[in-house]
Amino acid sequence: MRDVGIIGIGQTPVAEHWGRSIRDLAVEAVQAARQDAGVERVDAIYVGNMLSGELAGQENLATLVADAAGLLPVEALKVEAACASGGAALRAACLAVASGAHDYVLAVGVEKMTDLLTDGVTAALATAADADYEAGHGISFVALNAMLMRRYMHEHKARHEDFAPFSVNSHRNAARNPRAMYRHEITPEDFMASPIVSDPINILDSAGICDGAAALLVAPASEARRGRRPPVRIAASTCATDTVGLAERKDPLVWQSVADSARLAYAQAKMAPKDIDLFEVHDAFTIVSVLSLEACGFADRGSALKLAAEGRIAREGDIPICTLGGLKGRGHPVGASGAYQLVETVLQLRGEAGEAQVKGARVGMAQSVGGSGSVAITHILTV
Amino acid sequence: MRDVGIIGIGQTPVAEHWGRSIRDLAVEAVQAARQDAGVERVDAIYVGNMLSGELAGQENLATLVADAAGLLPVEALKVEAACASGGAALRAACLAVASGAHDYVLAVGVEKMTDLLTDGVTAALATAADADYEAGHGISFVALNAMLMRRYMHEHKARHEDFAPFSVNSHRNAARNPRAMYRHEITPEDFMASPIVSDPINILDSAGICDGAAALLVAPASEARRGRRPPVRIAASTCATDTVGLAERKDPLVWQSVADSARLAYAQAKMAPKDIDLFEVHDAFTIVSVLSLEACGFADRGSALKLAAEGRIAREGDIPICTLGGLKGRGHPVGASGAYQLVETVLQLRGEAGEAQVKGARVGMAQSVGGSGSVAITHILTV
Repeated sequence: MRDVGIIGIGQTPVAEHWGRSIRDLAVEAVQAARQDAGVERVDAIYVGNMLSGELAGQENLATLVADAAGLLPVEALKVEAACASGGAALRAACLAVASGAHDYVLAVGVEKMTDLLTDGVTAALATAADADYEAGHGISFVALNAMLMRRYMHEHKARHEDFAPFSVNSHRNAARNPRAMYRHEITPEDFMASPIVSDPINILDSAGICDGAAALLVAPASEARRGRRPPVRIAASTCATDTVGLAERKDPLVWQSVADSARLAYAQAKMAPKDIDLFEVHDAFTIVSVLSLEACGFADRGSALKLAAEGRIAREGDIPICTLGGLKGRGHPVGASGAYQLVETVLQLRGEAGEAQVKGARVGMAQSVGGSGSVAITHILTV
Repeated sequence: MRDVGIIGIGQTPVAEHWGRSIRDLAVEAVQAARQDAGVERVDAIYVGNMLSGELAGQENLATLVADAAGLLPVEALKVEAACASGGAALRAACLAVASGAHDYVLAVGVEKMTDLLTDGVTAALATAADADYEAGHGISFVALNAMLMRRYMHEHKARHEDFAPFSVNSHRNAARNPRAMYRHEITPEDFMASPIVSDPINILDSAGICDGAAALLVAPASEARRGRRPPVRIAASTCATDTVGLAERKDPLVWQSVADSARLAYAQAKMAPKDIDLFEVHDAFTIVSVLSLEACGFADRGSALKLAAEGRIAREGDIPICTLGGLKGRGHPVGASGAYQLVETVLQLRGEAGEAQVKGARVGMAQSVGGSGSVAITHILTV
């Protein structure tokens, strides 16, 4: 199994790109990654995307992107793991390079969500839940997470304001990311004044609907070391699953897929949580950050809120999260978010994160979660 | 790069499964493949599917299937390459096993198309075309293929009846496949009397809308040799792409993705067309068989109709195609069809194809085409 490295990255700003198609966004990210690497050759492209069929009337998306980016006749496949699709694209690229089948492979995450009215997007996002046993009864994705948050507050005697530090941290970091969608800082008071979406989840608990694309060019680690950019090694790439339906789980506050995926990643990288310098967590909702930090071993059960309250998740803390804004601050173009997390981790490890730089970062973990914790994809990157 | 073999296969009958969900169908195929292999262990599952989001309101499909089949917490990803998604699932499984990341991997193709009215399915299938430049103008998928067929008839002075042998052959073979949907033989007269769908394509030129799932369990070739079933080796696994839009091609009658994918496959397997004992071609429409046979080197340009007229595509011919009915006779549950083609190729190579057995078959090629020749996935299997 060959070691795999990342030799180029690219991303579009995250925004409501009314004037641009899903094809345009993907191509911009792809060409930026190729330019960053200074490498022309591409052997295959794996496109992570969740909703192009539902929202853009476009399947066959990977070939469409390969075509528009001038990459024909390369291998092109779309990979989908709900909201974790962007991470899945890198997972597929890792397997292709590790196998020796290909040397230069693009992993792209792309999503275009703003061409439909919000109702349509809410229905499309619910396809990440169980269509027969959850979505079919009218429960939306935010409602599923609201039930998790309510349960967490009940079990751990937490108040809504205890979740504020996650949102405050994400916005603080997004303000220092020129490609983020929500580049304004917020206060805990702003958080509490924010309108409820699905009680107890409010607007500032939630990552926004938006458009964007991010891409990574990977190659054998030996090639990466010869590249023009500081080489970043993929020390771990894992995927684990849990039930899609929340009601099927013994304990909904234990995110087993996240825990399994992290455990496998630590084993692959021969590391422990203490070795991770920054963690791009899948903060689709504040409760997701909380459950993920606990499942990944950064906090004991019921203590992630304390971690945040003590400032340990901040850029200067011992486990910085969402360092360029996360899903909340940068924006959450669902199928693309995993790729953004990985691109941002690379920026941090290269020391190119500007005002948002985490000092001395050498090991970064990026994790994408699909559904309400039903699938988790974890990568550990090192320099 | 490790050699990969197929150690188990499973399939549901192809039909209009009104009483069963996409989950049920996938699980039946998965459990059949595991039982066939006599192997409990599964490390990962890749689900090929095109339209679960549009037709079943279900993304996150691979995790849903892993969950329902009792495979948690294995890696689970959906792969999509339009109508070639079933072939893409095996491609992904090959890469995972070849890389050494996993040993026992399931490749599943599944589609459930009959829960919507035909208009809805026609619109969903059009997502394989270019949404902005083709489907957006109202052209359906059958209409795109009708233009190709009309052009072929014009260039090569062919008559509609010249295409009949393809449909007659598929139905003849389907009549000997207990899992096929259209188990009745037809005559050239039946073919010509069939109602036009999109001139010149008629009903019997076209593969039908239906439901089904097929699965393959793959493992390192060394394991396959120790298995309980006759070992089948994957001698080649390739994917190549062309423009999605038909209008972008220099010559629409040259299916370049198909040609490239076949050329790469022959090179990997160190074979030529003459070495192939049977060819599971992607006969979504008769014109697709024609263009694929020519692109893959089984017939010169303009001469595939002659190949069929001479009976050379029959079970007893020198290049048998659609040996268990093909997409036309067995049925074409789009994202599943590629997996059916591969399962059927394995049956032939094992000598388990019953009345449809191709005598002495030792090398089989299965090819899935997505869109109107925009992506082609080719596998060569050997015993």
